[in-house]
Amino acid sequence: MTGAGPCPSGLIIPGVLWTPDGTAGTRPLILLGHGGGQHKKAPGSMARARRFAAECGFAVAAVDAPAHGDRPRTEEHNRLVGEMRNRMHTGGDVAPVLAEVHTLAVGQSVPEWRAVVDAVQELDHVGAGPVGYWGLSLGCGLGVPFVAAEPRVRAAMLGLNGAETSAEAAARITVPVEFLVQWDDERVPRAASLALFDAFASAEKTLHANPGDRGEVPAFELDSSLRFFTRHLS
Amino acid sequence: MTGAGPCPSGLIIPGVLWTPDGTAGTRPLILLGHGGGQHKKAPGSMARARRFAAECGFAVAAVDAPAHGDRPRTEEHNRLVGEMRNRMHTGGDVAPVLAEVHTLAVGQSVPEWRAVVDAVQELDHVGAGPVGYWGLSLGCGLGVPFVAAEPRVRAAMLGLNGAETSAEAAARITVPVEFLVQWDDERVPRAASLALFDAFASAEKTLHANPGDRGEVPAFELDSSLRFFTRHLS
Repeated sequence: MTGAGPCPSGLIIPGVLWTPDGTAGTRPLILLGHGGGQHKKAPGSMARARRFAAECGFAVAAVDAPAHGDRPRTEEHNRLVGEMRNRMHTGGDVAPVLAEVHTLAVGQSVPEWRAVVDAVQELDHVGAGPVGYWGLSLGCGLGVPFVAAEPRVRAAMLGLNGAETSAEAAARITVPVEFLVQWDDERVPRAASLALFDAFASAEKTLHANPGDRGEVPAFELDSSLRFFTRHLS
Repeated sequence: MTGAGPCPSGLIIPGVLWTPDGTAGTRPLILLGHGGGQHKKAPGSMARARRFAAECGFAVAAVDAPAHGDRPRTEEHNRLVGEMRNRMHTGGDVAPVLAEVHTLAVGQSVPEWRAVVDAVQELDHVGAGPVGYWGLSLGCGLGVPFVAAEPRVRAAMLGLNGAETSAEAAARITVPVEFLVQWDDERVPRAASLALFDAFASAEKTLHANPGDRGEVPAFELDSSLRFFTRHLS
């Protein structure tokens, strides 16, 4: 679905839409937010999208986040990414720079996701069903303010991100949240992750923590997210 | 299965065994440890046992813990329970007394559970299949040293208990663990729960935390434990 919809500034947002084979009619829609430095067709997103569509009958949309994938980089974004890489090499504190990257993208990303939902739900084989949001790391940093602002989102799978820039928006989220923490995440301190989980105002929120760094989320968590969205959107 | 097996001291351990309808042959065996003040046929245990047997085809055994259900109370046990109730009413620190209750029962409970496995696995419709252990609260306090000591146990679902008396044994557990924390548990401090999760030496251990006090574990966690045992024992 290249050009799913012009975003408020008139730009085209490159995106991909997965739908179950040969089916018309209204269905739940899952929005996949990718991680920092990744894009709409990152292998993890592709694998998740296929399972959501094939096993749950959901429509799934992924778009490139601002300054990612097929979208132009800004000077400010490049400067921050350079600074982040520098700190990763020298063992400096990456978290505040990461928070700046997220803040830079959030202002753009929230209205873009809304435009994506508007456009995709007009399609005959998607329709105006309930919406779920899935996003870890950058996808969580951009997802929290979006989920807080968008009443069409009924459930969110979030994680691998801390409270720094997200706590205020998280306190406005009341839909069910499944929240992933990697217990030995080298980028996001454990306390910051737990503080973000604490911040959600949702009556149903469930935290899943597993050992290892952020690249080591176990495969069974994808199974769990399928059941989570099925429980809340079907 | 009243009198599943004489424990090493020659006592009879009152117990219940659930097996799937009309089936012979070897199958996984789940041991259900109950909470403090409860017993082998507590409603929660009954509900779990029925689902494990009916949906997974497992055999399920529950026994009364020392000084619980149909078993005689000791003077020391009664004294500790009285002290715990007293502290609960006056807002005192319950955790150290709870730890004493667990310690008192552990020495007896570990050889008893071994005797139960010995006896039950001799039955034609159970056999010597893989064993899983399920226990929260007291069932976790008694379960951790048992799982650490018993190589027939291949997976354990534990939680609602802290590291006080369990950290050393937890560090000897290497089988997969799913660990439940109630985020607002009024009896076990959050830090003590997370310390116990940290202590397990298991390569696969997964923490599930949900809001609310210890009585408010969400129903979807029972679904999750069915999948956890199916993944590791089937």
